[in-house]
Amino acid sequence: MAAPILDFWFDFASTYSYPTAMRVRPLADAAGIEVRFRPFLLGPIFKAQGWDTSPFNLYPAKGRHMWRDLERLCADLSLPLRRPEPFPQNSLLAARVALAGNDAAWHEDFCRSVFRAEFAEGRPIDRPDTLAAILADLQVPAPPVLAAAQSAEVKERLRAETEEAQRLGIFGAPSFVTADGELFWGNDRLEQALTWARRVAG
Amino acid sequence: MAAPILDFWFDFASTYSYPTAMRVRPLADAAGIEVRFRPFLLGPIFKAQGWDTSPFNLYPAKGRHMWRDLERLCADLSLPLRRPEPFPQNSLLAARVALAGNDAAWHEDFCRSVFRAEFAEGRPIDRPDTLAAILADLQVPAPPVLAAAQSAEVKERLRAETEEAQRLGIFGAPSFVTADGELFWGNDRLEQALTWARRVAG
Repeated sequence: MAAPILDFWFDFASTYSYPTAMRVRPLADAAGIEVRFRPFLLGPIFKAQGWDTSPFNLYPAKGRHMWRDLERLCADLSLPLRRPEPFPQNSLLAARVALAGNDAAWHEDFCRSVFRAEFAEGRPIDRPDTLAAILADLQVPAPPVLAAAQSAEVKERLRAETEEAQRLGIFGAPSFVTADGELFWGNDRLEQALTWARRVAG
Repeated sequence: MAAPILDFWFDFASTYSYPTAMRVRPLADAAGIEVRFRPFLLGPIFKAQGWDTSPFNLYPAKGRHMWRDLERLCADLSLPLRRPEPFPQNSLLAARVALAGNDAAWHEDFCRSVFRAEFAEGRPIDRPDTLAAILADLQVPAPPVLAAAQSAEVKERLRAETEEAQRLGIFGAPSFVTADGELFWGNDRLEQALTWARRVAG
């Protein structure tokens, strides 16, 4: 029987998606779940709610708690944390590059590397040279991938993925969706989502 | 040595405060923590953020996920759940009654009973007769308590508690604050807050 699928939806700019990206693979493997990394853009979804930036910027008390909470969380996971400047980072190009490599063996490693560059090393993920360096580290020739990332096909694919996220009821990241359409929001719901995915399959 | 203190801040209208109210006492007892039930009003804090109702009403996708998530959560905890109508309930009178009994032996039981009436039984917690029935069930004579709840002293105390919550950085409920001022937001942060409270004391 095929392994049950869990879709991990994220925006590269999303703070809580960082710890999830780092811990989802071993947990999914241990649970016998096939996890799929699905980057999308929160921007259009936030805009539809009337927000022109992250709610963590719009609501300062919420933002202060988030950074402190993330600090505690990363300390518990032994993950380095550096606050990106500016926050949020523009995640458009990184999402397009990830989708350009959606069926490639490096897709998931690339996603993790972007999160590490952004939240552990404080590198600007909107710059082509940052993404080129990440690809090079993964032994992937950067120029053709960066060119493909700017193709009409990939741009359209990212738009379609973002619309699909919205259709599934997603309003924040990270989010998890099981094969039967059950939606879980937040890094702290990952374990519950994996359990649900197994139950659906069983 | 005195037991370390953890303040549990909540609004009676807050959905996620319901499971917390039901599970905090045994967890705190097991951890050797003195938990204090501190009702306040989210309304003024939401208003300062430009919201005139619950964010779960203002942002429908977020609201849909919350009700489903709460359903799953209550099922896991074997807690009955009925969606209050209307939502959110007006929690002003319940908070005043709780504060009128702040130093009484029934304070905490009253708080749990209000949450049960609201979220398990679908009773209107803004009505004096609901609160009077809860007090009677706890063998507390209702008329003097309901009168005290409308005194200038208790009204002022609730205002002061809400201001104190805001000063502590609280922007939602449930929230937990340790003796050293560390803030944790959300039912899913309760265990972490208890661990922190012990660390501070130790």
